[in-house]
Amino acid sequence: MNRFSLNLLRNLRTYWQVNAKRRTSVTINQNIKGRDFLDVNDFTLDELKLIMWTALDLKARFKNTFIRDMHDSDGTMISSLLCEPSVKNQINIEKASQLMGARTCTIIDQHWESAECLSETGRLLSIMSQVILASSRCGKSLCELSAGATVPVINMGSSNSNPLAAIAHAITILTRLNRLERVRIAWVGPSNSSVLSSLLMMMPKFRTHLHMSTENCNTPVNLEKALKLASSYRCEIHHSSSPERATYRADAIITTSHSFDELRITRKLVDEAALKWIFLHDLPRTRNEVTDDVFYHKTNSLVWESAENHAWALMAVMMQVLTEYRPSIATPTFTEEQPT
Amino acid sequence: MNRFSLNLLRNLRTYWQVNAKRRTSVTINQNIKGRDFLDVNDFTLDELKLIMWTALDLKARFKNTFIRDMHDSDGTMISSLLCEPSVKNQINIEKASQLMGARTCTIIDQHWESAECLSETGRLLSIMSQVILASSRCGKSLCELSAGATVPVINMGSSNSNPLAAIAHAITILTRLNRLERVRIAWVGPSNSSVLSSLLMMMPKFRTHLHMSTENCNTPVNLEKALKLASSYRCEIHHSSSPERATYRADAIITTSHSFDELRITRKLVDEAALKWIFLHDLPRTRNEVTDDVFYHKTNSLVWESAENHAWALMAVMMQVLTEYRPSIATPTFTEEQPT
Amino acid sequence: MNRFSLNLLRNLRTYWQVNAKRRTSVTINQNIKGRDFLDVNDFTLDELKLIMWTALDLKARFKNTFIRDMHDSDGTMISSLLCEPSVKNQINIEKASQLMGARTCTIIDQHWESAECLSETGRLLSIMSQVILASSRCGKSLCELSAGATVPVINMGSSNSNPLAAIAHAITILTRLNRLERVRIAWVGPSNSSVLSSLLMMMPKFRTHLHMSTENCNTPVNLEKALKLASSYRCEIHHSSSPERATYRADAIITTSHSFDELRITRKLVDEAALKWIFLHDLPRTRNEVTDDVFYHKTNSLVWESAENHAWALMAVMMQVLTEYRPSIATPTFTEEQPT
Repeated sequence: MNRFSLNLLRNLRTYWQVNAKRRTSVTINQNIKGRDFLDVNDFTLDELKLIMWTALDLKARFKNTFIRDMHDSDGTMISSLLCEPSVKNQINIEKASQLMGARTCTIIDQHWESAECLSETGRLLSIMSQVILASSRCGKSLCELSAGATVPVINMGSSNSNPLAAIAHAITILTRLNRLERVRIAWVGPSNSSVLSSLLMMMPKFRTHLHMSTENCNTPVNLEKALKLASSYRCEIHHSSSPERATYRADAIITTSHSFDELRITRKLVDEAALKWIFLHDLPRTRNEVTDDVFYHKTNSLVWESAENHAWALMAVMMQVLTEYRPSIATPTFTEEQPT
Repeated sequence: MNRFSLNLLRNLRTYWQVNAKRRTSVTINQNIKGRDFLDVNDFTLDELKLIMWTALDLKARFKNTFIRDMHDSDGTMISSLLCEPSVKNQINIEKASQLMGARTCTIIDQHWESAECLSETGRLLSIMSQVILASSRCGKSLCELSAGATVPVINMGSSNSNPLAAIAHAITILTRLNRLERVRIAWVGPSNSSVLSSLLMMMPKFRTHLHMSTENCNTPVNLEKALKLASSYRCEIHHSSSPERATYRADAIITTSHSFDELRITRKLVDEAALKWIFLHDLPRTRNEVTDDVFYHKTNSLVWESAENHAWALMAVMMQVLTEYRPSIATPTFTEEQPT
Repeated sequence: MNRFSLNLLRNLRTYWQVNAKRRTSVTINQNIKGRDFLDVNDFTLDELKLIMWTALDLKARFKNTFIRDMHDSDGTMISSLLCEPSVKNQINIEKASQLMGARTCTIIDQHWESAECLSETGRLLSIMSQVILASSRCGKSLCELSAGATVPVINMGSSNSNPLAAIAHAITILTRLNRLERVRIAWVGPSNSSVLSSLLMMMPKFRTHLHMSTENCNTPVNLEKALKLASSYRCEIHHSSSPERATYRADAIITTSHSFDELRITRKLVDEAALKWIFLHDLPRTRNEVTDDVFYHKTNSLVWESAENHAWALMAVMMQVLTEYRPSIATPTFTEEQPT
């Protein structure tokens, strides 16, 4: 990876120097270069902030200029090991790779996790690529893959965590509400969702309140750990079987595809949420979990913003684990006060 | 898509200016930018002519120069959603993409059509790409995909239509015979072929005669509509169970892979066709539908020309739905008279 | 393929001219441009040497500089037809392609060999690409594919041969021991391994000794042919059921994944091998065929070197069948004496 000098970085050097003054006033000075990105709870609050800040920075600065300054490749290879075809993952990987001027090698293999020595797969991919993206049915596979890898491994979604989806949702809320602190999130959906798992491990660190309603009031996987986090960061975590209770006065209502009729999000439910409620959904959806008047709500449904932010989050994580990239836009305001 | 300015176009500006005079004499002045390309009968005769003209233009001008002037990418992403692996579709997509300096994201998923909300898939891909290519088992899937897409969707072959294969055949006939008007096409093959469906909806507009022979004289899907077209454009459509009748004096004999012995195209059949008969087949073939002496006929079998034209047709459609590209070569002669 | 002028070649012209003098002293002056690479026994000793030399040349010169001089594409398209997803094949193909500035079209289709007319698949891919890489369940498929192809077809591994894995092992041994002549190779593994098949057809030409131990002493597929080669090149080929006998005093011990307990390679076995024994394994491994103390031996296990050399071997073969590339580094010493 020492050969790696992302072209983007080079092109931004001037910008960097010009803006050096402002940047030094920023206290977030983390470095996650070379690390895996397997789970949100492997990262401190400041590291998560850096990733979100990076995503917003890349989005703000490259969304409309696109690849123009970066089409030159430096030989970066991004390898992906996906356990099934995925429209969302595959297009996000290609788009991020295109913007970074990298090449991709995408291997779709539903049996990749059943190889006997997954760590060797990680090592083999490390010889040929600078970063490994992987989706898995079993979270343990990613750890085994990572054990052998000498380059960063990024979790593209597993059975028990989906950190990029959680970060995409958080960025989307942050962009709309200009803070995460004391924002009230309602989760109305399955207790075993990987997105919920990652939200539970991440949102308390931002002092975001989390009210959940799950099928038969089943306990979410990470609830216990999350409650500890919540108590140390002083924020609320509530859990019940009642969608009405979870969504009451909620700022953001989040779900995922599921088949529990009693957890359907309707217009009636959101009418009791905060005035400027936000609806979020990691895609793809089914017809069950949310009615069309909520899903397609012109101003309040931010599902497409979140889908786009998912790609920027992926790119931000890749930039941060591959380089010491520092964003140039002002630090976003995460708390209710001024940015630290 | 407003960000989209195909590099090719830029490189051709000089050529364009030099040839402006000649081009203004051409009456075909259609614009299909931004439109889907799902079925041939969504397009007027002049629009179809524009596509064929574009294909021939690109082929004539870039076949031997290749990518040299266009390797620079403008950030165009072509996403493909294919219902099965396909040598022909995949290599055509990559080749067209290479020539256009674009990137591809190819998702092979036999279950993509069973997603509950296909329009959301279309919208998601529209966020990340400038055009969506899709093959499907069910034609309706493409319509649903297109309903949510905000970028053009191009049909790469579905159960009930294969417009690019039909256009490739038409271009191949046009190149050899210098006209489509009053050319006599014989279809000897299955009644439910998607290629036949598209030929039926397209050829009558060019006043091409179509004589079909199908298994047990089963009625081709679009026959009724085609007969109306034929009557308004004053051309022949005949349908029988007799390969002999269909191929008698035929200028072009077309088939596809099938397993009906009685529809096999043999040397004996083509001996009764026009002196300079043409044989066409969208690939892959099996050993049943045509004998080797016809399939491999040195001068009269144009299966490989048609296969190559299929790629140029795809590129032509992409160019036209993405840009207002205007060909620079002289307009081909579609009718028996001089070009209009 | 006459349009093809690999960019790499252009960039190396200066180097070439500067080093012309030294190069002319090299007697290996083979040319395999335009040929298939289906089996090692289609190639003479000098041709095999050229391929190995090329691999070492590319590795020495481009490993640390990477793509910088070659990212410019000349429109080369590499098509791959793989019978199953393969981490190793797919990443090798992408990496080689990246270094060559080419594009890839990778078609993963477990049914590609069951197409009725495989030669047509070869011809179709030849229209659109400059070289075809293919892996197959049945070796005959590659021959049929090649029969229709007008561009070189390269074997990425079939049921009965794996020439690139064999070459990668040979390069790895050569690099460590500075010769292949009279090196003693022990194969402890299944009799029907495609890697063994290719080693049997190749190593005797280098006068490398081959001692094999297979399950129940089953006869390796190519043994008879190999014995003839061995007799004409004057080297040893021994075959037994005893791993102890095969590995005794062996310089290099090679295996592949299998499930025969009696053929497990242990520390005890390698302790009776040559002092500086080498362990080689085409990946992926399972836990059965070798103990961890051998597989992970710090100095003697060269499995990762061989994995990397596999990619360089692929690139070397592509360079040689596509261009008349001549290496610039000194010819490696294959024999015990000075290089010829």
